[in-house]
Amino acid sequence: MRRQHHTPQRHTALGSGSEFDMIRDLARRWGRAARGLGDDAAILETPPGQQLVVSTDTSVEEVHFRRRWLTSGEIGYRSAMAALSDLAAMGARPLGMTVVLALPLEWMQDVGPLADGIGEAARDVACPVIGGDLSRSEKLHCTFTVLGSSARPVLRSGAKEGDTVYVTGHLGGPGAALRGLSAGKDPAPLARDRFARPVARIREGSWIAEHGANAMIDLSDGLVSDAEHMAAASGVRLTIDLDRLPLLQGCAARDAARSGEEYELLFTAAADVDANEFTRTFGLALTAIGHVDALVGEDRVVLTSHGKRVDLEKGYDHFSR
Amino acid sequence: MRRQHHTPQRHTALGSGSEFDMIRDLARRWGRAARGLGDDAAILETPPGQQLVVSTDTSVEEVHFRRRWLTSGEIGYRSAMAALSDLAAMGARPLGMTVVLALPLEWMQDVGPLADGIGEAARDVACPVIGGDLSRSEKLHCTFTVLGSSARPVLRSGAKEGDTVYVTGHLGGPGAALRGLSAGKDPAPLARDRFARPVARIREGSWIAEHGANAMIDLSDGLVSDAEHMAAASGVRLTIDLDRLPLLQGCAARDAARSGEEYELLFTAAADVDANEFTRTFGLALTAIGHVDALVGEDRVVLTSHGKRVDLEKGYDHFSR
Repeated sequence: MRRQHHTPQRHTALGSGSEFDMIRDLARRWGRAARGLGDDAAILETPPGQQLVVSTDTSVEEVHFRRRWLTSGEIGYRSAMAALSDLAAMGARPLGMTVVLALPLEWMQDVGPLADGIGEAARDVACPVIGGDLSRSEKLHCTFTVLGSSARPVLRSGAKEGDTVYVTGHLGGPGAALRGLSAGKDPAPLARDRFARPVARIREGSWIAEHGANAMIDLSDGLVSDAEHMAAASGVRLTIDLDRLPLLQGCAARDAARSGEEYELLFTAAADVDANEFTRTFGLALTAIGHVDALVGEDRVVLTSHGKRVDLEKGYDHFSR
Repeated sequence: MRRQHHTPQRHTALGSGSEFDMIRDLARRWGRAARGLGDDAAILETPPGQQLVVSTDTSVEEVHFRRRWLTSGEIGYRSAMAALSDLAAMGARPLGMTVVLALPLEWMQDVGPLADGIGEAARDVACPVIGGDLSRSEKLHCTFTVLGSSARPVLRSGAKEGDTVYVTGHLGGPGAALRGLSAGKDPAPLARDRFARPVARIREGSWIAEHGANAMIDLSDGLVSDAEHMAAASGVRLTIDLDRLPLLQGCAARDAARSGEEYELLFTAAADVDANEFTRTFGLALTAIGHVDALVGEDRVVLTSHGKRVDLEKGYDHFSR
């Protein structure tokens, strides 16, 4: 599959075979969310003066999600959003994405709704599907490579001593939903929605990049783990006040600090960031939750509550279970 | 994983966890074949005046290969080369690639040799690994997104009436190797080598693009199937003379015409292409095997032998088995 160069909205005629039938069906479902699938590769232009930003992310059945917990559309939507979130974390605007679906036989009847969820995510962040690949598989694998551009990509390695630490949104929902689902219970609707339909903070990430962020990362492993990644890459220490965490209704700070797959943005900035303007613009909370110090000793992330240090277990590591 | 921007050869410090340990090990193995893995996304520059070319390709155990047929290094090498071949087919030069490995438990001990094969492919075509993702899985999935650039990417849709049809290399090896392996026999060494260590014709593809190709495709499904893709995309008919097919020693033309995973290049050009210069430059055969006509009736590809039309079954379609 690929984006056709000269006639962006037309799809190249495809050859015969059931793989091509499926590509035709996907292209039809995606409509304007896809561009000219059909050649060996897609062709893109990076806007002048901007750098190309590339990230790739895979979601595997029974590793990243369980089918019984989500609709097929939700699985497509959240898998795509998880990948797109890496563009948000760099402050980049989407240019396009490739989609690889590895499909078990029992998923063949559900490819339509799965693709519809991917298409909805693509439309929500204006990131066209420009290519991909299809294969059979024993479990469903959805792999996305997202391409974006930015005049000044924000790295996770730029946090500086004296910076303030900020986070977008309200935390705890996906963690609460996962605990409920794992225990065979129905999670609270708000929490379930945050788990099933996460949103890549693309426009917010660009705004943050333009408002002086020194370092940024998206919350995929959980606040504490992702703060550690940022602190390690930046060679600094992050102190986070658990009492200041913005919590989704019904969630506790200790749980929210470990809740993964939030896809909210964690960033540091030297200057004060106008949280009110941010919230007026995006209808999303922006909260100062801590500060950056020089690294002293081995603790890259220090958590405090009521002025005292507290310890928590870390986030999710799917190789160590 | 990602390419770090300001210090291209240094790897960003990574956080804790076994996934990061594995990324560190991969980065060490790849050495200069990788660039600054560690951030949310990689940053790349497209050379001025060139277009970005993107393709994605997945290789799945038991679908695209069987483990007992190949060494772990060969599986990594050929999976990467299969993806890189799509850049060759557009006449593009590689900029970088992302690597997604979904690993079953029984592959964990063999990640090293697998990664070494990928690194060897990356070095052979000068395409650094710039990012990726790791997951657990029930079967091995190797997914590559390759990025390249070209001033004038060659599409499969540009074949014109009156063009001559050319193919690089000698055909039939991978098909012969697969028939042997499927029957439990040792394939001939030449055929096995073509199957186990295919080469993406990157430099050759650029040369062909600069020497007037109107349309180009790489032979992944087999000559007849890929010629049909090109004919369908171009709205023309391709006539191919089986008697002129360049054959690997010991291979028959009818088998070679259906042999998939060759990763040789099929292209059409209006002017005569200097096959001698091509062969002197690359040490690889270049053969005129047919011509392009207006589409008449439904036959997009016509095969001839001794001046008569012949029929063959088509190539491999892993959804229709």
